Formats: sequence, structure tokens, C-alpha cells
Amino acid sequence: MEHLTIENIKTWERFYRANFINCLSGFKTASLIGTVNAAGQPNLAIFSSVVHLGSDPALIGFINRPLAAAPHTINNIESTGVYTINHVLPSFADKAHQSSAKYPAEVNEFEAVGLESQFLDHIKAPFVLESKVKYALSLVEIVPIKYNQTFLVIGSITDVLIDTTLIQQDGFVNLQEASSTLCLGVDAYFTAEGFARYGYAKPNSSLEKIQ
Amino acid sequence: MEHLTIENIKTWERFYRANFINCLSGFKTASLIGTVNAAGQPNLAIFSSVVHLGSDPALIGFINRPLAAAPHTINNIESTGVYTINHVLPSFADKAHQSSAKYPAEVNEFEAVGLESQFLDHIKAPFVLESKVKYALSLVEIVPIKYNQTFLVIGSITDVLIDTTLIQQDGFVNLQEASSTLCLGVDAYFTAEGFARYGYAKPNSSLEKIQ
Repeated sequence: MEHLTIENIKTWERFYRANFINCLSGFKTASLIGTVNAAGQPNLAIFSSVVHLGSDPALIGFINRPLAAAPHTINNIESTGVYTINHVLPSFADKAHQSSAKYPAEVNEFEAVGLESQFLDHIKAPFVLESKVKYALSLVEIVPIKYNQTFLVIGSITDVLIDTTLIQQDGFVNLQEASSTLCLGVDAYFTAEGFARYGYAKPNSSLEKIQ
Repeated sequence: MEHLTIENIKTWERFYRANFINCLSGFKTASLIGTVNAAGQPNLAIFSSVVHLGSDPALIGFINRPLAAAPHTINNIESTGVYTINHVLPSFADKAHQSSAKYPAEVNEFEAVGLESQFLDHIKAPFVLESKVKYALSLVEIVPIKYNQTFLVIGSITDVLIDTTLIQQDGFVNLQEASSTLCLGVDAYFTAEGFARYGYAKPNSSLEKIQ
């Protein structure tokens, strides 16, 4: 095992370093975020930075890159207050990845990459029809991260579209059966295989493996 | 596929609902965070909310629950400015999960769960000896999330401990070979299996599967 210091890493070639640093924080769930602009023009983009903030209220965060690099999703969310997050399946991971290309604002990425938009009731933002686990959010707050011009976008879950046979008797969702896809670094995709559920841990009792 | 509204979900039993909402945001990398308090007492706790914020500067965030629920890690980081993040392996996932138990502040979780602390050079915070991918961070900012009393803790990577044979020729880190472990919901653990790398996506060219 080697010890690398940041002074050393800073001397690396830019794309090599970005790939390495992106990988260090580990696997993430690949998530397609669907929005519309004020004129109703749909937008779709892939994100790897979705994070659980709390279950009551049900809050989810994601990191949006600086405005100069990635303006469409965050601008649409700011102007409409609504967005959807859609899990990716291996069967359309290539199309999901293609949505990371820098399309002009007037391009509808659903059409450009070949995925179908799905509108539901009065929710303005489009879902991805092909996705099997997806939810809509209402914007709560956009927190600027001053140190590198990124943003933490916080939303509150309003609606969930899911095959309820995936939900187990304790509320656990079998995302392995759903084939929800992971990403790593800037361009790698994975599926997951479970090896244990341990139940709730307490200080003075040993763990009981429940599955 | 069913449509669940948040009004419906709010009526569910508390633990069932927490498990469900925790799962919705998907798989995350299981990360053990090592700290010491001002007196040098080690602390270890598992987190699922580590997020990539940027690669230049190399910034990583994680979500700390409200102070009343999880005070030790965040208090130690605030007082020392230093912490480590350590990937979990299946061989010690049970011990990692056990670190989520609410031990009193004076308990050293390394000893309580049976993992070994590893100190390096002048880095005050302990690494997990058994971990194969691990890094140290210097605190940049603690951002309070007012809406639910959680915190986004932002750190800058200072040191990385890794078997460099895991690093591929473009900087990609083979975390599947490293057996870096995922978690889902509140108590489930997974490994990952890769199915594609697609390279950099551009608007007007088709994807080339590179692996």
C-alpha cells in the first residue's frame, strides 16, 4: 500500500487526476434528473451525487457543478421548483451516459439520447418512462458551496413511482432485483449483489445477520 | 408500477418509512470515518452519505445527522480539523455496521467493534488498518442544513493510502477488485460488478464502449 500526498497528486495530468479523485469517494447510484424550463422544454441529465438527507421530512440532496459547466438542470429547478430523479437500468445505461454530453439548452435530451419522457398528473417535470424506480421532488433550498462554486440542491419528495412488489415487509426496497445501476469515476457502470443485512446495531449486543 | 404520494407515505409506520425513504436514493459506498477528540480519544463511525464535490481542489462532502443523534464525529472534526474516510470490505462489514451503535463518547469504537486503528506521520486522525482504500481530509467548512438540522461537512483530501496496482492507466481506480462495499437503506451491504465503461460523451458522436 502506497502513501500519496495531495502535493504529489496535484502534479498529475488533469484527466488522470479527475478520474482518480472521482473514484476515491466510491460507487454511487446513477440518477437521471428530469426538468423543464419556464417554457416547458424538457431537459435530462445524469448525476452521481444524489445523497439521502433525512426521511422525515423525506429530503434528498444532489450536487450541481458550477453554473458555467452545468447550468440547465439547476436553472430549470430554480425556475419551476420541480424535478424528478430516475434510477438507471443496465438496458439504457449507454443512453443515460450520453445525456452527460454538453447539449445546447434548446435540445431535448430525451429525444437526443433516445429515452421516453413520462408526465404524470400535475407534476411539471418529466420522469424517464423506462426507469423502474423514480420520484418527484419539490425544491426546498439551493445551498451555494463557496469553496468551489458548486451547489447542494435540496428537495423534498412529493411522489414515488415504483413497482411495490420491490418493497419488502420492513420497508426495505430490493434495488438489486430492480437492477438499479451504480456508477464509478466519470464513465463506469456497475450492478450490485447483496451479501448481508444486519439489522439495528446496539452497543452491548452482538449483531444478528437477518438476511 | 404504483404511484405513491408523500401524504400516503407519511401515514406509514416510522421505521418502515425510514427504511423505504433511505433506499429510494439508492446504493452508496459504505465509509468508516475515523477521528480523535481534543484529548486524542479515537472515534469510528459508519456513514453512507459521502459525496464527490470536485476534483481540483479535491473536495469530498458527507452528511452528518443532527447533533442530538450523532454528535461525536462532527464534534471531533470541528475540534481537530482532521478526519479519515476508509472503504469497507465484506470481510469486516459486520464490524463496520456495529460502529453505528450509539456508544458513549468515552468508548473507542475501534476496540468496541474489533478493528485496528492505524496512525500515519503527523495525521492526527486514525485510519482503519484493515481498509484497502482510505484517505485523510482537512476540514474546509461545516454547512448547516437548516431545514432538518443536518450538516454538510466539506473536507479537502490531503493524503491517500491505496494499493497503486488498483489504479488503471487513465487514473480509474478498480474498486471492484478492491471489494469496496456498498450499503443500501439502513442495514444492507453489497458488492459491485462492472458491465461497461463508455468514455467521454459528446453531443454529436455515438458512444464508444471502452471496456
